[in-house]
Amino acid sequence: MSAIPRYYQAKTKLLDLLSELPDNTPFPPERELAELFGMSRTTIRKALDELVLEGKLIRKAGRQGTAVAPRKQVHRLSLDALVQDLATRESIVVRTVGAQDVINVESVLVRGDEPIGVRSTYLRASQFPGFAELYDRSASLRKFLMDRYKIRFGELHPWCTTALATPRIAGMLDVRPATPVLSVSWMAHDFRGVPVERSWVVLRGDRAHLTMHLPRTDHVVRRSTA
Amino acid sequence: MSAIPRYYQAKTKLLDLLSELPDNTPFPPERELAELFGMSRTTIRKALDELVLEGKLIRKAGRQGTAVAPRKQVHRLSLDALVQDLATRESIVVRTVGAQDVINVESVLVRGDEPIGVRSTYLRASQFPGFAELYDRSASLRKFLMDRYKIRFGELHPWCTTALATPRIAGMLDVRPATPVLSVSWMAHDFRGVPVERSWVVLRGDRAHLTMHLPRTDHVVRRSTA
Repeated sequence: MSAIPRYYQAKTKLLDLLSELPDNTPFPPERELAELFGMSRTTIRKALDELVLEGKLIRKAGRQGTAVAPRKQVHRLSLDALVQDLATRESIVVRTVGAQDVINVESVLVRGDEPIGVRSTYLRASQFPGFAELYDRSASLRKFLMDRYKIRFGELHPWCTTALATPRIAGMLDVRPATPVLSVSWMAHDFRGVPVERSWVVLRGDRAHLTMHLPRTDHVVRRSTA
Repeated sequence: MSAIPRYYQAKTKLLDLLSELPDNTPFPPERELAELFGMSRTTIRKALDELVLEGKLIRKAGRQGTAVAPRKQVHRLSLDALVQDLATRESIVVRTVGAQDVINVESVLVRGDEPIGVRSTYLRASQFPGFAELYDRSASLRKFLMDRYKIRFGELHPWCTTALATPRIAGMLDVRPATPVLSVSWMAHDFRGVPVERSWVVLRGDRAHLTMHLPRTDHVVRRSTA
């Protein structure tokens, strides 16, 4: 294992400094920090960039430097709430995709006054006649499909990965493009195995944790398929 | 929503180019790409940096430019396998942390010849007398605790978030520091609620997906606590 890189040493020092400053305090400029720590500006910039990516510093418009990001709560969103579509939602858009038989329902997940995620679901229009007119956007999408179209969902195998926010998603989440996000996807089938919907949720890595649930497994160590 | 940033336009073009080149092909230098697309080198560099971060390009040592990263399989690791400690492991280290009553068991998760994750578990030494001598590293840690210390685990609520690899973790995973990783953590209790272990798994975002399981919920939409 190699020695700790210079920029990471700088980052550790910057984190110490940061922890003592109140929210929104302008952070010392690159040049000043470079002198203070006896490190190159390139090294300091790399450390600052990482703190901005992690949401600990915010970069001000133009060449105004950085400031301490307001410490906001990290919200816990359960996998169950994401799938059931129970997270508080706003800006729900229903659109037909291209000339094809596909409906897309997209919503922004909010906590307080902040966007913390985007949820996007794809359905086949022919499978859900009248969907665009019938769906009133106030109910959970999943509950609506169950109540109106008598869908009985089967078990689900969502998967989770990390990605960099695309400019479009970044715009919706009010973060810089390329901010790390958590991506949760699933393909929902009904209990007979017929595909019902394909969903995809992107969560701000700096604002949201995904929480899961595993039942008791003390009596037997199951062999996994992984 | 703002227009698509220049660098993202560049990234899209670079992705097109990339998709036509075989693994390990040297990628055209910044200067050449800037001329080809009529964009600034700064713009091209930003796009290249993002592709390197995503593991689609590799940066060669020194000033050798970039090359097409070998397309490797993305491995699916189940949450269950991570918790049960069933993922293929190597380099298992058991150490006492500081002068304190804490044991740390750390292992590298491998698939093929690649490290794709790091698993780290903390236990109280006083709760598991003789652990360091008794644990033979060949069994799953969880199974060992169940068999040897008669632990009966209760249900679990792991949480998942995204983070940037620290230099130490990056070294173990053979990626650049600050590469986005998936982080899965849990606090395991026994069935009476006594804390047993605290674990933490970091997975390479470009190589591993976390898969989960949700049972059938068609009969009732449960209210979630999220």
